[in-house]
Amino acid sequence: MRNLPLPSPLEDTIAIVGVGLIGGSLAAALKQSGACREVIGVGRDPRRLKNAQAAGLIDTFETDLRAAAKRASVVIVCTPVDRIIADVRTAAAEMSPGSLITDAGSTKGAICATLAELSSGPVTFVGSHPLAGSEKQGFEAAAAELFQGRLCVLTPLPDTPAAQVERTRRLWQAVGMRTCELTPDDHDSALAYTSHLPHALASALSLTLPDEYQTLTATGYRDTTRVAAGDAELWTAIFRQNAQPLVAALAAFSTRLAELTAAIAHGDEASLQNLLRQAKRHRDALDPPSSASTNSSAHEHPFAG
Amino acid sequence: MRNLPLPSPLEDTIAIVGVGLIGGSLAAALKQSGACREVIGVGRDPRRLKNAQAAGLIDTFETDLRAAAKRASVVIVCTPVDRIIADVRTAAAEMSPGSLITDAGSTKGAICATLAELSSGPVTFVGSHPLAGSEKQGFEAAAAELFQGRLCVLTPLPDTPAAQVERTRRLWQAVGMRTCELTPDDHDSALAYTSHLPHALASALSLTLPDEYQTLTATGYRDTTRVAAGDAELWTAIFRQNAQPLVAALAAFSTRLAELTAAIAHGDEASLQNLLRQAKRHRDALDPPSSASTNSSAHEHPFAG
Repeated sequence: MRNLPLPSPLEDTIAIVGVGLIGGSLAAALKQSGACREVIGVGRDPRRLKNAQAAGLIDTFETDLRAAAKRASVVIVCTPVDRIIADVRTAAAEMSPGSLITDAGSTKGAICATLAELSSGPVTFVGSHPLAGSEKQGFEAAAAELFQGRLCVLTPLPDTPAAQVERTRRLWQAVGMRTCELTPDDHDSALAYTSHLPHALASALSLTLPDEYQTLTATGYRDTTRVAAGDAELWTAIFRQNAQPLVAALAAFSTRLAELTAAIAHGDEASLQNLLRQAKRHRDALDPPSSASTNSSAHEHPFAG
Repeated sequence: MRNLPLPSPLEDTIAIVGVGLIGGSLAAALKQSGACREVIGVGRDPRRLKNAQAAGLIDTFETDLRAAAKRASVVIVCTPVDRIIADVRTAAAEMSPGSLITDAGSTKGAICATLAELSSGPVTFVGSHPLAGSEKQGFEAAAAELFQGRLCVLTPLPDTPAAQVERTRRLWQAVGMRTCELTPDDHDSALAYTSHLPHALASALSLTLPDEYQTLTATGYRDTTRVAAGDAELWTAIFRQNAQPLVAALAAFSTRLAELTAAIAHGDEASLQNLLRQAKRHRDALDPPSSASTNSSAHEHPFAG
């Protein structure tokens, strides 16, 4: 699905902080969509930024976030979750009143609570989490299509101006995303189950496989462990920021795994078949993958605000 | 990779028992390879067999395994693991001396032990497990390329004639597979980790996800749970036949998951990062996917017999 060209840019200058897989893909998608006149890439390594520019992902670049923020009407922080708060604050200090900052962080509770003063200030922060990504890293893996048909969760606070929430929503819609709203805590509880728990299990499975069995793996093992190839530092920060909901999800998982293990150990065919049938039914309910070609409105989502 | 046409067929008539995803794909691949003059599809439902014939997967079909076995030089049993022993015995009773029976079962210990009398009899059974498949079911999902570059594990017993093992190996190689040999018990111990454990975890994860979070899943959750969409009856039988090794693998997994959970719960950044790094290293070691374009010989495999 390609969006229709927009009649005029939504924004003038957007600064993307952190030009990796997500930031690079977002920059490319924003340029392609015509949603802004200019995309500035912000990062620490000028050589990598120059390469991202040469690859056509960004228009210009800056190694100084303050300088980029001064010129931008919107800043989108795509750095690791443990750097987002500092980057948002640095940007906010330089931007004109009425400007918007959002992010792409996988956790929202701590970030949105710490930045609560920016929901009603002259510069607004609106939390975002685009549910798109990959185990790959770096702008070299970036693709403008990464967001097409996927869901972006917005996590405004009660006092966040509606117009700034709408402005944030339009940016994600411009790159092809559906959007919904959740409270930061509801987001974190849900993502503990849908993203962080699968990552923890994939990692534990990868740790469990004896080396001598590696050559006997097939697509099933590979798919089940794929996310364990994700960046260890990024995921350490995510797990730390969402520790409590994740520990709860791990406990719920362990209970179900214990049931399954008991049925296997006791040769209880009826229970085993019943559990595997339920599991298949749940998994089948997910397919076909979430209506990738529709841009559904918020009310389709059970948590829609 | 397409195999070079063989100078002459390896076999005259091959009967494939169970024309589902694996049997149908194998029939199509054998026909395409020119490894035999005729492929007979054997099943219970004549309408489905007629459709498989119309789809070009099989040359002819039989609903009576005995009739098919009488005409075949090789029978390949692709039925669920809890039906393989009976199907092999039925076929063996009808086949001429010197004939070969193999299978495609995901477990090998119980099957090969029960059929041990057929390793040295006039009709030989050689256990096989092609490590290829999908969560999909039915010949409608069959594809001749399913086996290309994948590994097939052969599990002969000490008294299985070498010539029959070699004959089995050539059939799997004809459809593009690499081969190795393991004892039936070594196979089952390994597959408990590489296939049955991932399936159990994917199923338990699918059971754990609260329904209201389904719309918040993305590719990570989908990949991690993909195999849970597999047929519940097939997998109940697999888990039952390999219960003891699977319970051991589940215990090993639970130990690693408990370590990871403790690091998350205690905010132990160093341990958490260390575990996720190790997990990533293990997962990265699997890629690129097992040299799909080479037809490596048995000695590359640590268990090669």
